[in-house]
Amino acid sequence: MAMADSDSRNDDILDRVAATIASRRGADPASSYVAALFAKGDDAILKKIGEEATETVMAAKDGDKLRIAAEIADLWFHCLVLLARHGMGPGDVRAELARREGTSGIAEKASRR
Amino acid sequence: MAMADSDSRNDDILDRVAATIASRRGADPASSYVAALFAKGDDAILKKIGEEATETVMAAKDGDKLRIAAEIADLWFHCLVLLARHGMGPGDVRAELARREGTSGIAEKASRR
Amino acid sequence: MAMADSDSRNDDILDRVAATIASRRGADPASSYVAALFAKGDDAILKKIGEEATETVMAAKDGDKLRIAAEIADLWFHCLVLLARHGMGPGDVRAELARREGTSGIAEKASRR
Amino acid sequence: MAMADSDSRNDDILDRVAATIASRRGADPASSYVAALFAKGDDAILKKIGEEATETVMAAKDGDKLRIAAEIADLWFHCLVLLARHGMGPGDVRAELARREGTSGIAEKASRR
Repeated sequence: MAMADSDSRNDDILDRVAATIASRRGADPASSYVAALFAKGDDAILKKIGEEATETVMAAKDGDKLRIAAEIADLWFHCLVLLARHGMGPGDVRAELARREGTSGIAEKASRR
Repeated sequence: MAMADSDSRNDDILDRVAATIASRRGADPASSYVAALFAKGDDAILKKIGEEATETVMAAKDGDKLRIAAEIADLWFHCLVLLARHGMGPGDVRAELARREGTSGIAEKASRR
Repeated sequence: MAMADSDSRNDDILDRVAATIASRRGADPASSYVAALFAKGDDAILKKIGEEATETVMAAKDGDKLRIAAEIADLWFHCLVLLARHGMGPGDVRAELARREGTSGIAEKASRR
Repeated sequence: MAMADSDSRNDDILDRVAATIASRRGADPASSYVAALFAKGDDAILKKIGEEATETVMAAKDGDKLRIAAEIADLWFHCLVLLARHGMGPGDVRAELARREGTSGIAEKASRR
């Protein structure tokens, strides 16, 4: 797994959130949402991915822009928790997106089937 | 909806993907995955959010790091399509995450209930 | 919406669960899970559908038969709540499945696209 | 896993659908939707559970009763496929729902945490 965008690491909010997740992971579950999530186990993290995706869909059906952005923020936050759980970070997602750059979506999709 | 991180706009892959989505949105659905998705309508975009979230969960249950990163890339890509559909972009998600910075997850969650 | 299987109404557990949901719907939210769910509003019901579907997927990935049956029971239960919310019941789902009987899945799918 | 409702086995549409799934499971994937799904593998079945749950949520947000019943029929159908994949059937879900009967939802939930 490559680390992308090392120059902007300290600037980008996704990297700052990933750093916060890493720092809270071993904290007291009573005082840290992230520590509580890790303490509950892997399925608790995955359940949140499913939950926030459903909430994103509901916000979009309501056409509520503020809630769409807020639910996607929730969804991406829990993706960052999942990445941390597997020793990865936002740089790995960026690297994957960068790898696909220049490939049309139709060609990219075909290459994976 | 605020625009965040204006300095790094041209550098970050999420912004580049958002720009690509914007440029392909009106293209020929036969040659562009993004144009085809917009042509199918809003529910087709949302269906992909649910689908990619499920695939992220399955990749995580398999403990397959490469697939986890690839499925999260898929999920974030379709979130960028949804944001574009509502006149937004990754900066709106970053702004929301930045707004929450410094707030503990427990306090943040409580403030919304 | 048709009512199916009127003869077996009192025998089938799905109908009994639907009857229980109907009877608890207006109860005190403090003492009834169903009343609490209706009090929280439509999105709370839908959120449970997404949640239980994710839990079904996770149980299946674990190959845990008891949990698969339990999570599908949870999922169907919340589908019955959603149906009740819209003035429907298990008979409407049965009627739809019966309508498709004899049609091959491939033909059925084609007829809807 | 117990088999429930043996008397109504041949009468109930869920049992008839389960029997059809069992009979088509080993058919030619080119002519049978069920055979094609089994041929694609376990993740293909689970992906459909996530997909149909999302479509149920979208139909409910639209308040479209016919589509709600149709999407729940799709969701339950793919649950029956998943049950068949693990050597189970609708009787196992009925048995689980029957086991919970008489237990309040709040007590039932508490017993599992």
